[in-house]
Amino acid sequence: MSVIGKPVLYSYWRSSCSWRVRIALNLKEIPYDIKPVSLIKAGGEQHSNEYRDVNPMEQVPALHIDGHTLVESLNILHYLEETRPQRPLMPHDFIKRSKVREICEIIASGVQPLQNLIVLIHVGEEKKNEWAQHWITRGFRAIEKLLSASAGKYCVGDEVTLADCCLIPIDRELENHPAFRAAHPSNQPDCPPEATK
Amino acid sequence: MSVIGKPVLYSYWRSSCSWRVRIALNLKEIPYDIKPVSLIKAGGEQHSNEYRDVNPMEQVPALHIDGHTLVESLNILHYLEETRPQRPLMPHDFIKRSKVREICEIIASGVQPLQNLIVLIHVGEEKKNEWAQHWITRGFRAIEKLLSASAGKYCVGDEVTLADCCLIPIDRELENHPAFRAAHPSNQPDCPPEATK
Repeated sequence: MSVIGKPVLYSYWRSSCSWRVRIALNLKEIPYDIKPVSLIKAGGEQHSNEYRDVNPMEQVPALHIDGHTLVESLNILHYLEETRPQRPLMPHDFIKRSKVREICEIIASGVQPLQNLIVLIHVGEEKKNEWAQHWITRGFRAIEKLLSASAGKYCVGDEVTLADCCLIPIDRELENHPAFRAAHPSNQPDCPPEATK
Repeated sequence: MSVIGKPVLYSYWRSSCSWRVRIALNLKEIPYDIKPVSLIKAGGEQHSNEYRDVNPMEQVPALHIDGHTLVESLNILHYLEETRPQRPLMPHDFIKRSKVREICEIIASGVQPLQNLIVLIHVGEEKKNEWAQHWITRGFRAIEKLLSASAGKYCVGDEVTLADCCLIPIDRELENHPAFRAAHPSNQPDCPPEATK
């Protein structure tokens, strides 16, 4: 048995942190296997003793690659970029690279940790929507302002970068968030019926 | 007036995110000026209109350098590493680089956002200690496990890296956190008086 084989991604289908790594693997055309970790089944398979050995943070994703297990999604993205330079997801220019990282970091440390499942459970059923909305709004206002200076066709310039890998999953996830769905123009009492068609 | 002068760090003395950037600037011997932003005065100077133009996330640090303003502390650390390679703070080996980023990311996205000032205000006076302790304990257990595999003299191997820049400030900050101070062996009712001397 070879230690180094096809990379294995520990992933949950709905997790936006897993999603961003899947996008990068796909863009770089790196074949990989998925090992699903259900964040829901049996109180969360990420809390099992077996998975805690994979990722002591008890979160997805984790990537087994090149004989090592890597955790933390932004770290995984940068590892892929450093070791698989095909289809680059970072610009060459230092300032542009910095602008990509700013967007990734705001999502990964300013938005995501405050609205992920384990935190919402801790905040409690009653307050969780208001809580999530508060932090998401703050983060996205900042991202919007940064994008107004950096964006071309994509988040930073005209090429897809790691910033897009991070932004798209969380944007799509938010579309389905109850607080955001309820606030959508088409769900307002004064929205004319013809506008929802 | 030249646009490009000495870097200016928007910083608050107690902020662990500012602190990690100060360590890197000092290790790399980059002269810089500090522009203090009090997170306490006048409801927090980081929320002023003037500062929101510097950092739309309304947080410290921000670094004005090379004619640009950079935000998000890990991004700033990596920018300094990319543009000021003297006194490297990242290893060459890809796996070791990844281990440095893992520790940085766990601190920056797994611990820091859940226990910083603005979140604790939102959690409320009554619950804030229990809340902070919960997330910090989870993050530090994971870091401890990662360090047991990666550490030499420092977090990753025998050279100071960005992981140490991130770990030391938060470790020192925690020493003074009421929940951690109260839980310290020397503050236990069954601690023998001779042990506290």
